[in-house]
Order: sequence, then structure tokens, then C-alpha cells
Amino acid sequence: MHEILVGAKILKKNDEIAAANREAFSGLGLFSINLISSPGSGKTTLIERTVERIGKACRLAVIEGDLQTELDKERVERCGVPATQITTGRSCHLDAHMVSHTIEWLRGLKPLELLIIENVGNMVCPAEYDLGEDMKVAVMSVTEGDDKPLKYPAIFHASSALVINKTDLTPYTDFNIERARENALAVNPALKIFETSCTTGEGLGDWCDFLTGQTGRA
Amino acid sequence: MHEILVGAKILKKNDEIAAANREAFSGLGLFSINLISSPGSGKTTLIERTVERIGKACRLAVIEGDLQTELDKERVERCGVPATQITTGRSCHLDAHMVSHTIEWLRGLKPLELLIIENVGNMVCPAEYDLGEDMKVAVMSVTEGDDKPLKYPAIFHASSALVINKTDLTPYTDFNIERARENALAVNPALKIFETSCTTGEGLGDWCDFLTGQTGRA
Repeated sequence: MHEILVGAKILKKNDEIAAANREAFSGLGLFSINLISSPGSGKTTLIERTVERIGKACRLAVIEGDLQTELDKERVERCGVPATQITTGRSCHLDAHMVSHTIEWLRGLKPLELLIIENVGNMVCPAEYDLGEDMKVAVMSVTEGDDKPLKYPAIFHASSALVINKTDLTPYTDFNIERARENALAVNPALKIFETSCTTGEGLGDWCDFLTGQTGRA
Repeated sequence: MHEILVGAKILKKNDEIAAANREAFSGLGLFSINLISSPGSGKTTLIERTVERIGKACRLAVIEGDLQTELDKERVERCGVPATQITTGRSCHLDAHMVSHTIEWLRGLKPLELLIIENVGNMVCPAEYDLGEDMKVAVMSVTEGDDKPLKYPAIFHASSALVINKTDLTPYTDFNIERARENALAVNPALKIFETSCTTGEGLGDWCDFLTGQTGRA
């Protein structure tokens, strides 16, 4: 119980900082997404492929979250897009305070249209921490179980879109995409679902059109 | 800072309960492992294959941890082994208190030789919560990045063994097993590493021999 009360207090403080971040993002005129998944679902590669497709037409920036290392920031920068890294140390999620430290950096980059925040690889805690983003997007890969939406409902409930990634590997797994869709929609009927492969390029067009549409460029 | 102090207090209390669990496990004469990975690395399937191979020769029980559902408990029970489910609700990890509630159930099953605890799918927080187990075992699959040990070092540091799973999928990914081994050993040179495929059976013999060896049956 003590843990829950302390948790509520931390989340309330987080929500206040998130509201300030949201106002700052809005002032910069950008649309922001918070990408959440377990480690290894392919978030960073999805960002790389997204940046390659729309990075020239759409001014974007990327915030990378990891416990340690700047490996992901370096990967994104190699695609020619500005990126910054938040290393969280022992924390299993980004929080609004950490993200608030990037706002001056974002102001230096303006004009921006799209901000992609890649959260720490974790399907649980990031769902509870508002960062000030416009939209949470859940990512899962076909090498995970298709029952994940039932076992980790919070993130599917909190997200507006779901990317089912690595579809090229489907033939080698017992993952059933239809069942995954049904499970995800049972948790959140409003989810917009994309099926992508960063290896074959399948579905990346729809995903990128969706993102640029959100920035008002469609 | 407040969050860190509260966290330290929670972890201290957890360690006290974990010590009591460890004494109870020891009194039951069983060897216990705490399996930790991100969602979708194949922990539950690894448990199913392990139970099929050694469940007749070695008396074992399984504790399943998930946020929601009893799906995993039911999967393990179908393999003919007693299992119980801890559903954690919003908590992203098992803790010693939750596990303490299973001890009466374990006493009713004795004699037992091996207890497998499958933690909630999360590569971060479970590393910090001692459950009273004899050994933490990290699991990662080849569909995750081979840089995971560098990005999530705590769990690789806290574990005595690492299972690199789904090796049958290696040809379809850019996962480099040698690099994964090097990265894992850079974090923890004492890690005992297994390479397994629950589809082809590769490496399961070594893994099962290791487990039964720990129970003194080798």
C-alpha cells in the first residue's frame, strides 16, 4: 500500500511536468510519438527505416531512451537526423522530467514537424508515465507471443496505434497475426494497427503516411 | 532522490522476505531458479520443453508470473507438472512477498527437487528483486539485438546463466551469436551460456543437464 501511495505521488508530479512538456512541444509546432515495446521488437530499426523514408520531406528529431550506451542515438544520427540520448541508469522507463531536459535542444533545431521518442525497452512501466507526447505507439514483433496484448494490457490500452513488426519472420514462428489483432482490439477497439517488416519494407508506406498525416502534411 | 530513498527502503524489506523464502526453499530441499527476460524471448516454451525432458526424472514445480491471465500456468500444467500463477496487476516484476504466498503450496507438493520461477517479462526491474531463488537465469532470443547485454547490463550482471534462445531463427536475422556472447561476458565473465532452440531441440540437453546437475542428480 505504501508503495502504491508513493507511486501515485510520483505519477502526479510526472503528469505536471508532462503537461509543461506538452505545452512546449505544442509551441514548437511538432507532433510527438512515444514508441513503447519490449526490448528487441525492432523499435530502433523501425525508426531508421522511417527516417530514411520521410526524413527529407518532414523535419524530424529523435529522442532515444536506454539504461546505458549511446548506441541507438548513433544509429539514428547515421541516417542524417538529429538525435539525443537519455540514459536512465537503473530506471526502466523514461519520465517527463528526463524528457524536459531535451526541450532546449529541440528549440535549437526548429522548425520541427515530428518528434519520435523511443522509450526504454519495457512493456510495463512506460505505459504509466506520460512524457507530454501526442500519441503512444505500441510495437510488438511476430517473434513474441500473439497473447501479449492479454498479458500486458496497459500499454495496448494506453496506445493509439500498434505496429506488429518483423512480419517477414511470421513463416518461421507460430505467431498468428489475426489472433494478435483480435487480442489487441479486445483490449483497445480504437487501436490503429500496422503490420511492418523493416527487412522487406512491407507496410512501411502505410506507417509513414500515417505519421506524416498526423503532422498535417497528408 | 525521494524516489531513490523510497526504492532503497522497499528493496531492503524485499531482501528480508527473500531471505525467509530462501530458508523455506532450503528446508524443502529444492534448487530454485528465477528466469528473467523481456516478453517474447520464449521463457514459457523453454519451461515446457524442459519439463517434457526432465519432469519424469526430477520432481519439479513452476511458478508463473504475469500481469494478467493464467495462460502460462495452464500451458505448464498441460505438460503434467504442478504450476501456480502469480498475477501482479500493475507491477512489472515479481517480489519476494508475492512468492512467499506460494510456500504453503510448495510444502503440499514435497518432495521437490527443482523450482522454476518465470518472472514477468521485463529485462529491467526483476534484476533488483531477490525472490529467495538460488540462481537467476537471463534469457534472450536471437530476434532481439545482440547488443542487449550492453544496454540492459543489470540482469546479465545479476544472473549466473544466460540462455540464448530461438537459435533456429538466426539465419533470418542479423543477430551475431558470437558478438552476443562477447557482450554478455564483458558484463559478467562468469556467465554460463547456453544456446537453445525449442523448435529443433538444439542445446536443450546441455541446459537440462545443467539444471539437474544443480539439484545434485548429475
